[in-house]
Amino acid sequence: MNQTIPMFPTSFLPELRLRWKHLQEAMEETNLQGLLISSNVNLYYVSGRVFSGFTYLPLKGDPLFFVRRPVGLSGADVHYIRKPEEIGTYFQQQGLPLPQTLGLESDAISYNEYQRYEAIFHPATIQNGSALLRRVRNLKTDWEIEQIRRSGRLHTQVYHTIPSLYHPGMTDIELSIEIERQARLAGSLGLFRIFGQSMEIFMGSLLAGDNADTPSPYDFALGGAGQDTSLPVGGNGTPLKEGMAVMVDMGGNFTGYTTDMSRVFSIGTLSDLAYRAHDCSLAIQREIERIAKPGTPAKDLYNTALEMTTAAGLADYFMGHNQKAGFVGHGIGIEINEGPVLAPRSKDILARGMVFALEPKFVIPGVGAVGIENSFAVQETGLEKLTLCEEKILNLS
Amino acid sequence: MNQTIPMFPTSFLPELRLRWKHLQEAMEETNLQGLLISSNVNLYYVSGRVFSGFTYLPLKGDPLFFVRRPVGLSGADVHYIRKPEEIGTYFQQQGLPLPQTLGLESDAISYNEYQRYEAIFHPATIQNGSALLRRVRNLKTDWEIEQIRRSGRLHTQVYHTIPSLYHPGMTDIELSIEIERQARLAGSLGLFRIFGQSMEIFMGSLLAGDNADTPSPYDFALGGAGQDTSLPVGGNGTPLKEGMAVMVDMGGNFTGYTTDMSRVFSIGTLSDLAYRAHDCSLAIQREIERIAKPGTPAKDLYNTALEMTTAAGLADYFMGHNQKAGFVGHGIGIEINEGPVLAPRSKDILARGMVFALEPKFVIPGVGAVGIENSFAVQETGLEKLTLCEEKILNLS
Repeated sequence: MNQTIPMFPTSFLPELRLRWKHLQEAMEETNLQGLLISSNVNLYYVSGRVFSGFTYLPLKGDPLFFVRRPVGLSGADVHYIRKPEEIGTYFQQQGLPLPQTLGLESDAISYNEYQRYEAIFHPATIQNGSALLRRVRNLKTDWEIEQIRRSGRLHTQVYHTIPSLYHPGMTDIELSIEIERQARLAGSLGLFRIFGQSMEIFMGSLLAGDNADTPSPYDFALGGAGQDTSLPVGGNGTPLKEGMAVMVDMGGNFTGYTTDMSRVFSIGTLSDLAYRAHDCSLAIQREIERIAKPGTPAKDLYNTALEMTTAAGLADYFMGHNQKAGFVGHGIGIEINEGPVLAPRSKDILARGMVFALEPKFVIPGVGAVGIENSFAVQETGLEKLTLCEEKILNLS
Repeated sequence: MNQTIPMFPTSFLPELRLRWKHLQEAMEETNLQGLLISSNVNLYYVSGRVFSGFTYLPLKGDPLFFVRRPVGLSGADVHYIRKPEEIGTYFQQQGLPLPQTLGLESDAISYNEYQRYEAIFHPATIQNGSALLRRVRNLKTDWEIEQIRRSGRLHTQVYHTIPSLYHPGMTDIELSIEIERQARLAGSLGLFRIFGQSMEIFMGSLLAGDNADTPSPYDFALGGAGQDTSLPVGGNGTPLKEGMAVMVDMGGNFTGYTTDMSRVFSIGTLSDLAYRAHDCSLAIQREIERIAKPGTPAKDLYNTALEMTTAAGLADYFMGHNQKAGFVGHGIGIEINEGPVLAPRSKDILARGMVFALEPKFVIPGVGAVGIENSFAVQETGLEKLTLCEEKILNLS
């Protein structure tokens, strides 16, 4: 291949430098001399692209990029390798000192990968680099927030089409398919990136009626049986019928960053309890919008939600009925499950640049799931809502 | 929750027992007294469902299931836990001897998970359980092959609709979206399961024209730029134009098992070179169908393909042009990248029950990708083709 393309455009360098600086500040605090990154998510974070290979970030100075694939990437700090051990060879040839303390992505890479990379940098003391990366990634840069804002606008545009996609006689899956198509036409990349393996999902979930009450193995706010035991989450082929609540919780994957938004639709009229619970969700959201700002403990947001729910006599239905989720919100970014976690024992403290999905939801037996989910950025003065779309229950029939 | 559902239906027990037996035979060979499984893929393999938790398979007898979520699973060997350490407590309380040698999924679980599970079974000697599981999973049971056969039928049904989905003026992505919709309507679960992190993809790839020649970081046969640097694979918005080859390589994810199939469509007439290369792919497939049977080294299949390609003067275009894939086929099953690998240095030997995708492909500059991909099961007497669909280049215009 004669053509080469730069590792990243020059115009993107200031953004990357900012991220490297944040990481290096965190490395300084934890006494880390080097950080070796190989997961797709973190490679994307530090280089703006996914490649097969490694980024080595030293405590001072610019990172080195060790690339296996694709061919043709160029840049002063791009070095092609065939296997990880050539990183060690490169250090030796260049007379670079090996770090005495090294961060590896011990929560993200396999045991065998870790062992292999550790040997290259022996006898460096290894620390948990994935925890450090997650902590830094929790505080989004303005550029990152703008990506999420853009995703939110497109996500909203897709949700606006939902009433026009419904036809009587549809199943949950059939309605989901039409929403998926609209999302793809609007530019959705489709793929969800998820930290760990506590979740697997296709483009999102659409829960109708009592399927919303089917416990799932995954760590989502709500469950659903899914279509097959190999992927037990979301829609299960439920025919949409009068009196059912339909919760649409499809991902907003329009950029490398995800937005999360849920809206509820009804087939005809729902029970009074369902409307009351939905109103409670909106009230919880309003209260959290009022109190959340830099410095607010994330657990206070969960506790506020739980107190309001209990006061309204709705605790039995809060965040699931047969099985309950232990949180009312979660950070979003390159992955759908970042920090902060809005849970009773969360140690996270809100800070400017955090972006999270707030999703107070209720499962009403015989009706389905109601409630709200929006994505918010934490700004100096409070929350900025990134997913702006009608919040009341819309009757599709 | 008052209702419980069995961990697996009684009717499925014989199938599961067969898998447990295969695993236990492999454990016997490698002197393994216990195997602790926690990855979603392998939990699905040993239980027929995905759950959050662990399966402990002893060398003799039935496995124990330690479940965190979902609530409500029942069965003699189902034990609810909140954290992995309770597995150790259970062994102690029941007076069960801890294994002296234990398999952990060291290629699939993170370093930190591994450390945590190792501590529970201390001082057991730990071996690579994921390699053992992959080896056993490479030999599919008749039930598993039937799932793949079923997926192949649905996959074919979707591909039959492709000519009716094309409209002049479409982009690659727009055509892809309509195929994705047909796949979902036919029951596709959408999600791809992939071993390791060398690949990420949405529902598959559709490569038109020179985008097929864009090198990708991923370990797929071909690349494509994708729509965003966060997911650099597949279609990139190329308008479909006269003289272009369009290769459709969408996954067949209709069950917990994947089929893989590619077909080529043309917009008008392609260059002679493109048709000649396509014919060479079909000839390679015929020759491999003729020679492949239990006992055939997988590397022979690759070498056969390469020799035929070289003899035809097409080596420059084989398995990519700017960047070449180093294989001509790969095992499929619960994951899209299982064994055997059809590559020059593969040590795999074909055996009854293996299922693989064979994908001799060429990238012709100025035209696009041509070639064929089908899924095959290795039966006693040779290969059974599981994806039956017109193989010549179909003109869409």
